Amino acid sequence: TKDLLNSTSVVPEFVGTREIGDTIGMVIPSVDPLLLDQLHVSKKYPVLGILSARSGAGPHIMAIDEAVKQTNTEVVDIELPRDTKGGAGHGSLIIVGGEDPSDARQAINVALDNLSRTFGDVYNSAAGHLEFQFTARASGACNFAFGAPEGKAYGLICGAPAGIGVVMADTAVKTASVNVLSFASPKHGTSFSNEGMVHISGESGAVRQAVMAGREVGLKLLSELGDKPVNDFPSYIK
Amino acid sequence: TKDLLNSTSVVPEFVGTREIGDTIGMVIPSVDPLLLDQLHVSKKYPVLGILSARSGAGPHIMAIDEAVKQTNTEVVDIELPRDTKGGAGHGSLIIVGGEDPSDARQAINVALDNLSRTFGDVYNSAAGHLEFQFTARASGACNFAFGAPEGKAYGLICGAPAGIGVVMADTAVKTASVNVLSFASPKHGTSFSNEGMVHISGESGAVRQAVMAGREVGLKLLSELGDKPVNDFPSYIK
Amino acid sequence: TKDLLNSTSVVPEFVGTREIGDTIGMVIPSVDPLLLDQLHVSKKYPVLGILSARSGAGPHIMAIDEAVKQTNTEVVDIELPRDTKGGAGHGSLIIVGGEDPSDARQAINVALDNLSRTFGDVYNSAAGHLEFQFTARASGACNFAFGAPEGKAYGLICGAPAGIGVVMADTAVKTASVNVLSFASPKHGTSFSNEGMVHISGESGAVRQAVMAGREVGLKLLSELGDKPVNDFPSYIK
Repeated sequence: TKDLLNSTSVVPEFVGTREIGDTIGMVIPSVDPLLLDQLHVSKKYPVLGILSARSGAGPHIMAIDEAVKQTNTEVVDIELPRDTKGGAGHGSLIIVGGEDPSDARQAINVALDNLSRTFGDVYNSAAGHLEFQFTARASGACNFAFGAPEGKAYGLICGAPAGIGVVMADTAVKTASVNVLSFASPKHGTSFSNEGMVHISGESGAVRQAVMAGREVGLKLLSELGDKPVNDFPSYIK
Repeated sequence: TKDLLNSTSVVPEFVGTREIGDTIGMVIPSVDPLLLDQLHVSKKYPVLGILSARSGAGPHIMAIDEAVKQTNTEVVDIELPRDTKGGAGHGSLIIVGGEDPSDARQAINVALDNLSRTFGDVYNSAAGHLEFQFTARASGACNFAFGAPEGKAYGLICGAPAGIGVVMADTAVKTASVNVLSFASPKHGTSFSNEGMVHISGESGAVRQAVMAGREVGLKLLSELGDKPVNDFPSYIK
Repeated sequence: TKDLLNSTSVVPEFVGTREIGDTIGMVIPSVDPLLLDQLHVSKKYPVLGILSARSGAGPHIMAIDEAVKQTNTEVVDIELPRDTKGGAGHGSLIIVGGEDPSDARQAINVALDNLSRTFGDVYNSAAGHLEFQFTARASGACNFAFGAPEGKAYGLICGAPAGIGVVMADTAVKTASVNVLSFASPKHGTSFSNEGMVHISGESGAVRQAVMAGREVGLKLLSELGDKPVNDFPSYIK
């Protein structure tokens, strides 16, 4: 029988991968109009950049947030599958649109390079995970995905199992004066993930302080369910 | 680098854990009003008790059903993530409200203590699982989650993969005269779990008999897919 | 304590199993009317045939498509749990209705026998999966599940993580002149699976050519995430 994978030539759409989250980046230089009509994009660009992963939603959204800041592209779709390969959270499908293939390729490369930073405050144990994100200036991806006001500081505090996220959110919001944008939970604002997640906005120092306070209590609570949670990359929120 | 988990002090919100289902119980003695506005609760209480698990929905709901019977608390949220760590079912996020932190703490402790009973008729194999629940007198949690009439007998018959639940339900309903409250399946009344689940109500003896008849056929069907399903705790429905 | 599984007698509803996908087939010769009222079926038949699996949606739908062609039965329910035992895709609950138990039993047997064909172009790796389906003449199951026009050729091109499906779809649609019925993604037309999936229809040769072109690019892209994806049964689309 013919080997269906007999060629080692690279597909031109391919940009790169990262082992973390089983992440792949691709670019379609000129999307077929019949397909574009069926894609679930907020705006129809001829050029698409694609970031797709089995594990990770926050890290990929924050990485794309940096990418759209630095390139001439716009977020046109963020969809969160209920994945993580048996874990409690999401994977991600993120599409950016542009006019020039080199812009889209650059955006996807910037995003891939940012993952080692944005995974820095993702802590995993056998029982669950915790995730923290912070940016002093939210851009298009944080706005698209979480309703974060652009140009202002934004923070995410997320725990699994979900109840840990409720307690972390309470601690965080009591710690500093921030705006509570929303609270996401298995039935609301997630794809039935087992996560409790508060989205906060406001003054940069206050948002950072709230995120760090949530992290401190979350690490203790998740540790009560067994092993100490560990991150794969150095923490970036300090 | 600073160890983010350098303190062994217990978080005051922590109540306890159970290994089964990776379950954690917590109490927030005075929830932040900004957060409370964003939580998805049916009624705003100042005190919240939280039961959260990676695996288990029925067992936790039945355990909370006992807890609200025995304490001065009320169920204000039940959300079922699509979890079970790669299994076919749900985890759970359950919130009870109260006026007094000691009531909420007692409720969560009662629920944690009931899990070894309510997991008694959960049977797992490599191919799927079966779950059976029965109470002679349903209370607030069964009503909130499944629409069970309070004060009447309630039974749950659940199988995964979902088709097994259809056949069990048919056998159960033919065995005794019961009311069929609803049938939950991957697209209806679940969070896309691979479960078929009938909720029944009625006279106590009839509901118990129906549940036991469903269990008998379910154990045989799931066994056709490989190993004999086993429970982690003694069966309580007899 | 009494062994709840002390009998080896076969349940009369049991038809058969297949190891692939943890698939079980069953028939209810005369469904209880109280239960039938609560089932989520498009039409109420007295006889139900049931195909249920932990892993596999496309393969089971295509297998049922053959079954309803060959028997006097009709598809009345297709529901796709978010399952695959930690994988990125769906399981399935499929119900066919009929007037005669032997028709329903035959339908389920035909479907079970077709799985070794319809799983032929499902390729798995540690990082994800690819699925391809093709029929020269779509019938009731393809129509029910995917809106495929009956009697015309239908093709499915699916990749996980979802972004791979976007690029495969673009390649496929550019390769041959086909109708794009829809594009399914984590938030649209799936149960939050991590899949990108295009449904195409049209002239038989064109649909087959488009599916094969999508397959070629998909195998290369998924291979970039690690191992070469492999199928458990021989490819049938050639």
